Amino acid sequence: MREINASIPFDKALWRQDIAGSRAHVAMLAKQGIVSAEDAKAIDDGLQQVAAEYERDGVPEDWDLEDIHMTVEARLTELIGPVAGRLHTARSRNDQVATDFKLWVREATNCALDGIAALQRALVVRAGEHADSVMPGFTHLQTAQPVTLGHHLLAYYEMLRRDASRFGDNLARADECPLGAAALAGTGFDLDRTMTADALGFARPTANSLDTVSDRDFALDYLQAASQCALHLSRLAEELILWASQPFGFVRLPDSLSTGSSIMPQKKNPDAAELVRGHAGRIVGATTALIVTMKGLPLAYSKDMQDDKPPVFEAAGLLDLCLAAMEGMIAGADFNAERMRHAAGLGHATATDLADWLVREADIPFREAHHITGAAVKLADRKECTLEDLSLDDLKGIDARLDERVRAVLTLDASVAARASYGGTAPDRVREQVAAARRALGMEE
Amino acid sequence: MREINASIPFDKALWRQDIAGSRAHVAMLAKQGIVSAEDAKAIDDGLQQVAAEYERDGVPEDWDLEDIHMTVEARLTELIGPVAGRLHTARSRNDQVATDFKLWVREATNCALDGIAALQRALVVRAGEHADSVMPGFTHLQTAQPVTLGHHLLAYYEMLRRDASRFGDNLARADECPLGAAALAGTGFDLDRTMTADALGFARPTANSLDTVSDRDFALDYLQAASQCALHLSRLAEELILWASQPFGFVRLPDSLSTGSSIMPQKKNPDAAELVRGHAGRIVGATTALIVTMKGLPLAYSKDMQDDKPPVFEAAGLLDLCLAAMEGMIAGADFNAERMRHAAGLGHATATDLADWLVREADIPFREAHHITGAAVKLADRKECTLEDLSLDDLKGIDARLDERVRAVLTLDASVAARASYGGTAPDRVREQVAAARRALGMEE
Amino acid sequence: MREINASIPFDKALWRQDIAGSRAHVAMLAKQGIVSAEDAKAIDDGLQQVAAEYERDGVPEDWDLEDIHMTVEARLTELIGPVAGRLHTARSRNDQVATDFKLWVREATNCALDGIAALQRALVVRAGEHADSVMPGFTHLQTAQPVTLGHHLLAYYEMLRRDASRFGDNLARADECPLGAAALAGTGFDLDRTMTADALGFARPTANSLDTVSDRDFALDYLQAASQCALHLSRLAEELILWASQPFGFVRLPDSLSTGSSIMPQKKNPDAAELVRGHAGRIVGATTALIVTMKGLPLAYSKDMQDDKPPVFEAAGLLDLCLAAMEGMIAGADFNAERMRHAAGLGHATATDLADWLVREADIPFREAHHITGAAVKLADRKECTLEDLSLDDLKGIDARLDERVRAVLTLDASVAARASYGGTAPDRVREQVAAARRALGMEE
Amino acid sequence: MREINASIPFDKALWRQDIAGSRAHVAMLAKQGIVSAEDAKAIDDGLQQVAAEYERDGVPEDWDLEDIHMTVEARLTELIGPVAGRLHTARSRNDQVATDFKLWVREATNCALDGIAALQRALVVRAGEHADSVMPGFTHLQTAQPVTLGHHLLAYYEMLRRDASRFGDNLARADECPLGAAALAGTGFDLDRTMTADALGFARPTANSLDTVSDRDFALDYLQAASQCALHLSRLAEELILWASQPFGFVRLPDSLSTGSSIMPQKKNPDAAELVRGHAGRIVGATTALIVTMKGLPLAYSKDMQDDKPPVFEAAGLLDLCLAAMEGMIAGADFNAERMRHAAGLGHATATDLADWLVREADIPFREAHHITGAAVKLADRKECTLEDLSLDDLKGIDARLDERVRAVLTLDASVAARASYGGTAPDRVREQVAAARRALGMEE
Repeated sequence: MREINASIPFDKALWRQDIAGSRAHVAMLAKQGIVSAEDAKAIDDGLQQVAAEYERDGVPEDWDLEDIHMTVEARLTELIGPVAGRLHTARSRNDQVATDFKLWVREATNCALDGIAALQRALVVRAGEHADSVMPGFTHLQTAQPVTLGHHLLAYYEMLRRDASRFGDNLARADECPLGAAALAGTGFDLDRTMTADALGFARPTANSLDTVSDRDFALDYLQAASQCALHLSRLAEELILWASQPFGFVRLPDSLSTGSSIMPQKKNPDAAELVRGHAGRIVGATTALIVTMKGLPLAYSKDMQDDKPPVFEAAGLLDLCLAAMEGMIAGADFNAERMRHAAGLGHATATDLADWLVREADIPFREAHHITGAAVKLADRKECTLEDLSLDDLKGIDARLDERVRAVLTLDASVAARASYGGTAPDRVREQVAAARRALGMEE
Repeated sequence: MREINASIPFDKALWRQDIAGSRAHVAMLAKQGIVSAEDAKAIDDGLQQVAAEYERDGVPEDWDLEDIHMTVEARLTELIGPVAGRLHTARSRNDQVATDFKLWVREATNCALDGIAALQRALVVRAGEHADSVMPGFTHLQTAQPVTLGHHLLAYYEMLRRDASRFGDNLARADECPLGAAALAGTGFDLDRTMTADALGFARPTANSLDTVSDRDFALDYLQAASQCALHLSRLAEELILWASQPFGFVRLPDSLSTGSSIMPQKKNPDAAELVRGHAGRIVGATTALIVTMKGLPLAYSKDMQDDKPPVFEAAGLLDLCLAAMEGMIAGADFNAERMRHAAGLGHATATDLADWLVREADIPFREAHHITGAAVKLADRKECTLEDLSLDDLKGIDARLDERVRAVLTLDASVAARASYGGTAPDRVREQVAAARRALGMEE
Repeated sequence: MREINASIPFDKALWRQDIAGSRAHVAMLAKQGIVSAEDAKAIDDGLQQVAAEYERDGVPEDWDLEDIHMTVEARLTELIGPVAGRLHTARSRNDQVATDFKLWVREATNCALDGIAALQRALVVRAGEHADSVMPGFTHLQTAQPVTLGHHLLAYYEMLRRDASRFGDNLARADECPLGAAALAGTGFDLDRTMTADALGFARPTANSLDTVSDRDFALDYLQAASQCALHLSRLAEELILWASQPFGFVRLPDSLSTGSSIMPQKKNPDAAELVRGHAGRIVGATTALIVTMKGLPLAYSKDMQDDKPPVFEAAGLLDLCLAAMEGMIAGADFNAERMRHAAGLGHATATDLADWLVREADIPFREAHHITGAAVKLADRKECTLEDLSLDDLKGIDARLDERVRAVLTLDASVAARASYGGTAPDRVREQVAAARRALGMEE
Repeated sequence: MREINASIPFDKALWRQDIAGSRAHVAMLAKQGIVSAEDAKAIDDGLQQVAAEYERDGVPEDWDLEDIHMTVEARLTELIGPVAGRLHTARSRNDQVATDFKLWVREATNCALDGIAALQRALVVRAGEHADSVMPGFTHLQTAQPVTLGHHLLAYYEMLRRDASRFGDNLARADECPLGAAALAGTGFDLDRTMTADALGFARPTANSLDTVSDRDFALDYLQAASQCALHLSRLAEELILWASQPFGFVRLPDSLSTGSSIMPQKKNPDAAELVRGHAGRIVGATTALIVTMKGLPLAYSKDMQDDKPPVFEAAGLLDLCLAAMEGMIAGADFNAERMRHAAGLGHATATDLADWLVREADIPFREAHHITGAAVKLADRKECTLEDLSLDDLKGIDARLDERVRAVLTLDASVAARASYGGTAPDRVREQVAAARRALGMEE
């Protein structure tokens, strides 16, 4: 039973939050005259001493004390005697653990936001460098149209922008302080819950005590946002792994985030990228874990809810690692622009430009333009040349409305420059987006 | 191949969005001079006719046309001839499907918000009726302290408030229009993407074309919010099932949402509540499905993403059903207040009130007060009476500081009335919360 | 990078398997003449010394050595010098880690089988004691028909029998030894893979080296079987929690697996049961984690696969705890047979017996018999008596074919005794099943 | 309520099983003398007529009849009158639905086994053709060592062999017939459950009636086996998508399972492979759905369990499609052996062969051999040649123990031929494995 019941092996991670919550609580009890100023001071001094000890020596793991709340209280009692018993007035472990954990999750959320911003900055810097670097744009992993590497990197900036907005929404939704809900029904003591909420950085107290001790939405919110962020990182990781493979050869990842082999010194395994991709699985698994645990629980607190912390702690640790590793990879990636440009030149990636030219300049309906283009592509294939290298006679032979001007739109640079619609891949557009992103991230002075 | 490739069996649900998107697109093409006004009118008239046909007869399911986009375009071509081919100028199936699906998800989100509000109203009405009804408050499904049924119902009001905030955040995050991203790279045509965004009810166009065609965050956002909402509903369903069992006997669910048995006419199976609880599993499964599908996909569009729609369609249908069923159950539930009050009287649920009185009135430290209370509970158990029924001598025998006044705090009504801290179960507090909720829901005139 | 890459914090759990694998490998290398007998002896002695050190002092956690394989090899080199380098001949970390982990999972599987058998024994013992104890059988958590507690407990025996069969199938499927697959392609050294397979307790070596280093089916098999077992335990936990609630009052759980409250000494929280139910969520989450991680990985080994161990280690630890806790709860549960019997008597649970009597004795078609029974139930409800207490006149008034004999089938004991079809709840049937189960579990001498 | 309650829209898929179950039941009732031979004949004839109607016209979907069981019974009553009412004697919807669904799942399992065998045959045929085709073997998607395409394809044969064993184990575990468990407690009628089990192709009846109506393990077993199989297919799909990309260029997928583009006729999107990979997500989601639904359900039947069928039906449909599509892709894939061989020649993939030679022929310890090899690779890189092309002087300059003979082991063909350990990539080994697989699949006459 001790083994199944003890949460101290993992919930000791909450010690800072537990002590902060207790200090806010006792200050409020004193102000409301529920404990004397003297007792409150003794308790607060004692709590500070416990904090100093834990900071210095770590939290002792005594399974008989079961959880972090009892561990702190037991030590406090050793330090200041029975007056320690007044700390728990008008409080219960149920609102206490909800408060501690919510504070922890809020900090983890801010940590994720920092990691996201750092990765965004790295992406934006590299996107700025590669606003003109042409690479193949893929759909179905087939070369489709040329794009710029800068544009491609900014796609991830956008995903991370949504991730940040999700974590930000979570902070706003978790801005209500549980402390004061007591066991489940509120309390008969005359509390000032606004005071404790304020002291702990919350906007207001929670509105319903039964909900307060039964609620783990804030933890699920964190996990769900982390899952989506991890999915985005897994997509970027997948691309880096592909790009680092010999057949692609688009990138060389930094040595510090790869592993080599004594036997094949030229081989560099993209370990960090693979671990980012793999960790996504575990973060998703952690989310599933908490969802399954919460499903169908009646109100109010049930012990099942003790299984809320390991998944969140695990996911938060992994997410932070993934964000940092990805920032390092993006910042240190050695992109092979030449090889990318070469690959973009294969596969007649500018065929759409030819079709669009026909629509635009010759007013040929879209579907017919596609047909003509298909014939040109086939001819180029047969001649083993690029579209751009077809002779004027070749073009005229396909359709008389094709003329000399069309050749100009068929180069890679012309192709990307032309896609200047809002959000498009044109280098000028990319530079605008980079500038806007730098402003949004506070990178400009 | 036809069988694995055809999406028309499910994506025909998008026909309204597809036609709305096409109409917005062609109006913009006309305004920008990319198609003539005349052609645009023909196309728009044709699209309206297609819409009228589908409204009347449903969408035909021809697997050779593969998806809803081709189905609409093919019918348009039959109706207006080759000019239909101009509709697809500066557009691709990739931005088209992203637009259609995002519009659909936004509507489903609004639908969920309506369902949530309706259920909240039902909860608030019943909470108002039962602000004074005493029931046992459980932790660990053990009777812990008396609470009011009104307070208990409002706990779900709070959960749903967070659900609504989640769906609302999703709407804000999904307020960018994909149309104009084209296949993946943007387009060389001079589009006015703000115009189409505006016409379709979006705040602005998306900022990066590669991200636009690769992004299904909006679908995951819906599914994750739906999962959390379904979890809340599953908890309420679990309680209704428990409460409707013979040993509890707290509620009789409406006949219209139960099934009976010809052989046991008094037996009423809480089928709707069980299905709400069961459906939560499927909604969670749908979320997992899309997460797994998106994990590790390189940019830009991959066909895997065609598997985005069935999970969302399934989850949305189930969530709407669950919300409506739950509203019906709450509105029609026949609560047995007498039986609830009786159950609240068992198990010495007011023991905490005795302990709190000792702390408050006799200034006894919390932990000692608990000890004295424990002795009183044991005595009452031995005498097979309630705490309230212990004689003054009995009380004095336990601790001399107990006096006549304490008896007054030990009744159920005194107990709930005392828990008047903010968010507490006191009837006055519940009435305040009901009033605030009515205002928030626009139920007051 | 060190932080994201190092697996030693968790894979040190594999040290026993790693050393066993190395010893088997070097013995085979010696026998095949690939290393000299002398070198092999030095290596084997060294490995035994490393094992003794780890047994005594634990495994040192040096992140620079990255994983358990390097940790062991580095220590071996310290102990015996460069000859240690011969150990890794014809082996790679890829087949080594697959071997270590498969050995670990096989041991965890055997451990689960032991835990299952122990819980089955506890269930069978209690079922034998309660073969005659009548309780309400529920469908939809509504009282449906009387059953015996013994029969109910044996339902879990059956579930666990399937769980055991699943784990047993896994052992048979994982009976192929990875060692010798080398990095991915096999090796040019003349290995005797059958010898190492045999030494490590496998039936044979794996058949395809690429599959061998890419395969984690055995880990998923464990997790999937653990998930189903955890689901079964969560169902039993749910019932114990319900039964321990005041409204049910069917069981008192052992003190050693509950937690009390100083303030309400009579209250016993079913913490262990709640944790079993909660842990099911985490075990399911662990399964999801590995599934998501493996999805879509190309061959052969990818570093993502390093994320295979934490979910399995976590799930195995939780499952063992759950099985042991549940065994303790079943063995120590104090069932309140009187209260169960009382509850079974409510709700006209023997109505089906009346209907069946009409079909059997009066040859009335099933649907009509149901109709007559419904009328009897209604009358009993109106008279506030049980079916058994209706007078002969009452019965005749409902249908003339009812006679005195029917009363005998309407008692609880008659009802359960009658259900003597194979697999039915009749006490005699239960005793037969108990006897069969005891034989299957080897509980008879 | 009708909408949330009606299962006929999906459970009509069970009509064949429902009628088969009823026919077996009534035959047994007749044999046991519970219904007369005459009534039994009328019922059986009626059931056959219903079956003929459904076969011809499909199953009518009348939501008032709720489910397939009522739909069949209602039609039977129309056809043969009140005697139809005798069919349901000694049976309940609870054991009936368990029987129907288990029969369906068993058939789906056999169907999966057929699909697996067909795909295995395709793999084995192609592996036989490509036993000598050299391609790069990847770890971390980095070229590691040369392997043969035949060996690579056989890795999937092995995975599918485990999948088949899983489905086979499921059949054995689900070999107990639920019919006769009645509502939950068994029945007082004198049934011959062995007779119905036998008639329906089960080995024996289930042993505990409460378990029988509460059990959905067989459905979870199917889903879990399907998930693992889908994971394997998703890995193969991932590889086909990679191999079909322009930078790899290893394969051209059959036109019938790709989609082209009118504008880029040379581009072929691997749609079927992407859908296989995407469908894996939905199959995993379906598994999660049922797990979440079953978690924590008390015995016996709860209506939540009605949510068991949609996930299984969906997963089974998708799995069958995936297996068939993959078989088509493997059978029709046009592998570019020349391009594969060229890629294998890059990246000094035979470096391990050099190191192994040093160990084997010069008795140099493994770690030192690696060091020497690393030097050779670096030199070859500097000279922009292959290892094989280094001159004897070059080799001697690195280490004097290198001599002329080493060159012979550095060719691609020598490399793969050398890896002849059991399970290795050597063409002879591959041919042996192909032969063994052909025998196991019954492909030899």
